[in-house]
Amino acid sequence: MKNQNLKVQTVKVNSKFWGRYRDLMSEESIPFQWNMINDRDKVEVTNDPFAAGGATDKSHAIANLKIAAGQQQGDFFGMDFQDTDVYKWLESAAYVLSYAPDEKLKEETDSVVDLIADAQEDDGYLSTMFQIEMPERKFKRLQQSHELYSMGHYIEAGVAYYEVTGNVKALNIAKKMADCINNHFGTENGKILGIPGHPEIELALARLYEVTQEKRYLDLAKYFIKQRGKDTSFFDKQNKADGIDRDFFPVLGTIGNRYYFADKPVTEQTDVHGHAVRVLYFCTGLAHVARLTGDEELKKAANRLWTDVIKKQMYVTGNVGQTGHGEAFTYDYDLPNDTVYGETCASVAMVFFAKQMLNTRLDGQFGDVIEKELFNGALSGIALDGKHYFYVNPLEADPKASKGNQGKNHIATRRSSWFACACCPSNITRLISSVDKYLYETSENTILSDQFIANSTQFNDEIKINLDSDYPWSGNLKYTIENSKKVGFRFGIRIPNWSANSFEIRVNGEEQQLSVQDQIVYVEIKDSSTMITVQFNMKAQLIRTNVSVKDNLGKVAVQRGPIVYCAEETDNEKNLWQYKLSQYPSFKDIYRGDLLDGVVTLETDDVQKIENTTSDTLYTLDEEAKTEKTHLRLIPYYSWANRSEGQMTVWLHQ
Amino acid sequence: MKNQNLKVQTVKVNSKFWGRYRDLMSEESIPFQWNMINDRDKVEVTNDPFAAGGATDKSHAIANLKIAAGQQQGDFFGMDFQDTDVYKWLESAAYVLSYAPDEKLKEETDSVVDLIADAQEDDGYLSTMFQIEMPERKFKRLQQSHELYSMGHYIEAGVAYYEVTGNVKALNIAKKMADCINNHFGTENGKILGIPGHPEIELALARLYEVTQEKRYLDLAKYFIKQRGKDTSFFDKQNKADGIDRDFFPVLGTIGNRYYFADKPVTEQTDVHGHAVRVLYFCTGLAHVARLTGDEELKKAANRLWTDVIKKQMYVTGNVGQTGHGEAFTYDYDLPNDTVYGETCASVAMVFFAKQMLNTRLDGQFGDVIEKELFNGALSGIALDGKHYFYVNPLEADPKASKGNQGKNHIATRRSSWFACACCPSNITRLISSVDKYLYETSENTILSDQFIANSTQFNDEIKINLDSDYPWSGNLKYTIENSKKVGFRFGIRIPNWSANSFEIRVNGEEQQLSVQDQIVYVEIKDSSTMITVQFNMKAQLIRTNVSVKDNLGKVAVQRGPIVYCAEETDNEKNLWQYKLSQYPSFKDIYRGDLLDGVVTLETDDVQKIENTTSDTLYTLDEEAKTEKTHLRLIPYYSWANRSEGQMTVWLHQ
Repeated sequence: MKNQNLKVQTVKVNSKFWGRYRDLMSEESIPFQWNMINDRDKVEVTNDPFAAGGATDKSHAIANLKIAAGQQQGDFFGMDFQDTDVYKWLESAAYVLSYAPDEKLKEETDSVVDLIADAQEDDGYLSTMFQIEMPERKFKRLQQSHELYSMGHYIEAGVAYYEVTGNVKALNIAKKMADCINNHFGTENGKILGIPGHPEIELALARLYEVTQEKRYLDLAKYFIKQRGKDTSFFDKQNKADGIDRDFFPVLGTIGNRYYFADKPVTEQTDVHGHAVRVLYFCTGLAHVARLTGDEELKKAANRLWTDVIKKQMYVTGNVGQTGHGEAFTYDYDLPNDTVYGETCASVAMVFFAKQMLNTRLDGQFGDVIEKELFNGALSGIALDGKHYFYVNPLEADPKASKGNQGKNHIATRRSSWFACACCPSNITRLISSVDKYLYETSENTILSDQFIANSTQFNDEIKINLDSDYPWSGNLKYTIENSKKVGFRFGIRIPNWSANSFEIRVNGEEQQLSVQDQIVYVEIKDSSTMITVQFNMKAQLIRTNVSVKDNLGKVAVQRGPIVYCAEETDNEKNLWQYKLSQYPSFKDIYRGDLLDGVVTLETDDVQKIENTTSDTLYTLDEEAKTEKTHLRLIPYYSWANRSEGQMTVWLHQ
Repeated sequence: MKNQNLKVQTVKVNSKFWGRYRDLMSEESIPFQWNMINDRDKVEVTNDPFAAGGATDKSHAIANLKIAAGQQQGDFFGMDFQDTDVYKWLESAAYVLSYAPDEKLKEETDSVVDLIADAQEDDGYLSTMFQIEMPERKFKRLQQSHELYSMGHYIEAGVAYYEVTGNVKALNIAKKMADCINNHFGTENGKILGIPGHPEIELALARLYEVTQEKRYLDLAKYFIKQRGKDTSFFDKQNKADGIDRDFFPVLGTIGNRYYFADKPVTEQTDVHGHAVRVLYFCTGLAHVARLTGDEELKKAANRLWTDVIKKQMYVTGNVGQTGHGEAFTYDYDLPNDTVYGETCASVAMVFFAKQMLNTRLDGQFGDVIEKELFNGALSGIALDGKHYFYVNPLEADPKASKGNQGKNHIATRRSSWFACACCPSNITRLISSVDKYLYETSENTILSDQFIANSTQFNDEIKINLDSDYPWSGNLKYTIENSKKVGFRFGIRIPNWSANSFEIRVNGEEQQLSVQDQIVYVEIKDSSTMITVQFNMKAQLIRTNVSVKDNLGKVAVQRGPIVYCAEETDNEKNLWQYKLSQYPSFKDIYRGDLLDGVVTLETDDVQKIENTTSDTLYTLDEEAKTEKTHLRLIPYYSWANRSEGQMTVWLHQ
């Protein structure tokens, strides 16, 4: 008997590592963010050095909705997408409710759904800034209005909330919004033949289609995907008609279509460029729509853009977006570590993009990137206390540089509690609270174990899989597969790129020589009970970068399992750039339960510190550097900046 | 017999190297700039990548003066200091006339002096923007008005022109300006107790004092030096009174006193900071006034600031100003090579500062910096054709980076013919055309040979010194000292820091063991004829940087004699960062008359190119880099970007 349509039913995350983070969501982050959007807590913003995201003294996001709903008097405050802080909180809260039921939280989320319904106009429109301040300008300045972006975020939240709680009102708001957009946009006569400045609606509509199966939503998503870059004068025309001097963000009027990834149709795009979050949200929608419609041109485009990011524009931590100028990608192989932007939202978007790619085609490279973000680049966006956030994630930081060199003052060296543009906090919480969605991927009669987060998962046909592991600190996995109906299926295990050359798999205790196909090994399952153990290579490894990357030449990073490490000043001496690893350093890996809520540190004596030969001159002639043997401790990158403020570096001289 | 007051009378530069540049001034640069300021030539600006200095289609500088003089109708155009483009051209032309008499040029310069006199108001005031557009705002917004800066530049030009040609009218304009400023500024009741946003007037008044011996000019200079940073609310008060929204340069209203080096009195300043040219012009005036007044506190301040620049904030090429944000210094030991500003004007200002320091105290460190600028950092500001200029001088450039990464798009990879802010072209020409002023420094009975530029120089007491040399390509100097009156004096020779450990001096053929005092050796002269030969160490040497400088660790630069070298893509393969010098590379130095108007290149086979082990991945795990033996050619830094556009780097991996 074969099941051709395997599906995940329920997932229970047992991982100690992720359990702590998910408890943090329910106990700290979600209540904290609720207070923030309700203006019940003082905002503490790191603004010295200036933290990207900007300083603010309040959120006003709930207040804006109340004003739009007629429940409160007052003016709109904030970004034109301020509403999304509420929506992304709601989405996070929905996921939390799926694993940590909580009456009080449920009351809050239900009340937010009611509030949103009240704020929504009869025709489905919802964007409080326009409703409160400038109703006559609705859909008239899409380049900067974030209206479709905002509604897209609600649609995601509404779908998630409906899926977890069955709240139909939440779903209906989303449908009403989508219908409103469908009534205004498209190729038909009388509709706006336009696109949003900030993609998001595409992926949201695809998600809404999946839960409603209403084809018009998929068609509309596809329209937005295909229309982008077709009419390169659209934004200019709208801006001119609306009044050239009425920009919401002055520089965004003249920055050009490339920044919006709207310089040509996606079928002609060969590289990611422009604002990182915009292009990656777009790519997520692109991959999703390509899969749902089976459009081969769109699939090819998604593959091209994926390949460009991961082969030419991604930091080793998974961070993306090399510059703060426009929060943007720069160009292939340009990966400066100390001026990087690496927005938390962009890393979250990479997870979404990767997930859609994986859903289209089982290949280990996608899970590799999801893992990279979950344990490194995205996770660094949130403090261990759950209540402080990075907007920018550098691979090299120095408080002196952030303060003293304006080209680096977007790099905060401690996390803020909130931002004027507060997109990152609720993006990282919605990712962490939904991490259960990334464990397995099913495709016909295949179950792929993609993320090795200890869990007990129920599939259809009474298949139950238990994964026991202390991952990411241990590389030992133990799968117990219960299959009482003896269904025949393929069980795939992703072989991470960092263990590709060294891993061991045993099925019921017997070592297997399995071929690796697209970074996945498959085991045929037919018995009622199967035990599979896996051992990955957990030795610390040195990473080197393609020589086309200027800034990493002569340097190495250190990775152990999925975790990329960094050196922090608090564990070592400054300046961190003076450390030089030997050619074959050996590292001691030590689990420290008392440190940073439990981490494996890497320690080595195979390192020297480069010192001055002549103490106070700036330059020396024909004098060799002096070196002294020393000791170096590395900690996981995601955990940096949780103690005292100081220098940090991922890349070390060798 | 001793002469206690040795003075230079006339200098003739015989150097082949500088002769070429000085001919270039008279034959190309000065006529070219004359056409530019008269709007007779098309401006060709490099603005892709965006070149610092900005794009423009005209100068209008002469036209502004004509309008102010009532000789022409029209509106003012340009920066509020547009007049200085004329003044600095006039100053350059004056120096050119001193060595290359030219009737046509003399007519032009005389006519410019007449024009300026006509434009000057009866009370001495001259700043065409204010005269034409906003006479009611004179001296009301000194933070940004550049009025004293502009008049300061005229004073320098007027003094120079008077000294060369004896044109009294030119001097009188300067005196009238200084008197106007003296009538408006100072501590007396009814005067403005204020300072200019951009220093320059201080050094100009000191210069005017030296030629006129009018003490009020020195007192006024001292007032500006001492007043700076005393009243930190001065600019804000003026801006408020003038209207807060009437900034000439919007960002300059809120940038803060630190940027203006006006955050505290100079006697309390310990480091250079803020806009590089501002602080260095101020330091020049400071050192000059300190010497003229004998004020010990000011002397100490000048020393402190000098030491900070050269020991903590100067690039190996002599360039200064680490960031384009505010064209500013950043902080000690911050010396990024690929985001540097290194404005040509700032290097010229370093020469002025060093000269004033040297004039106060004979010490080789000052001449070292003058030399560094003359042969490297400042000289790189002008193309070999004399008609194209760099505003920004990077130590590492890549056209792809300048185009693709906005944090680097201030770094042009080819020189422009002109700029919207055209301060640099005439600054480098006034330096080159006055290079004769830097050869000797006299102090009582001492003559110091500071810059080794071949020359014949007449001193008082019928002392004549001839220096024969092919410097900078050769390190052999031959001095012939004719001293028919057998005057007893000390003849000093600076021992450059790059030859401190290895040099040979012969007096009348006999090798001398002379002690070095502050990087100077002294020979007692009393005979009627003395021949001194010097041999400096002209081996290529490797430069390393203090380990506190993050960006140069693991890298070396190469210097031969006074010349710092760089690698250019056109001579080598890209990417230049893939080259790695061996520990003890040996270089062939080859003079090539056909290359770059004659340069010594350095060539080595002791170099490897680092290549990828795996071709198309971005990161590799536990794979060592592959290296291939190769060849590397280096050229003098000043001569880069005179052939095809491409990568350039001063620092090389080792």
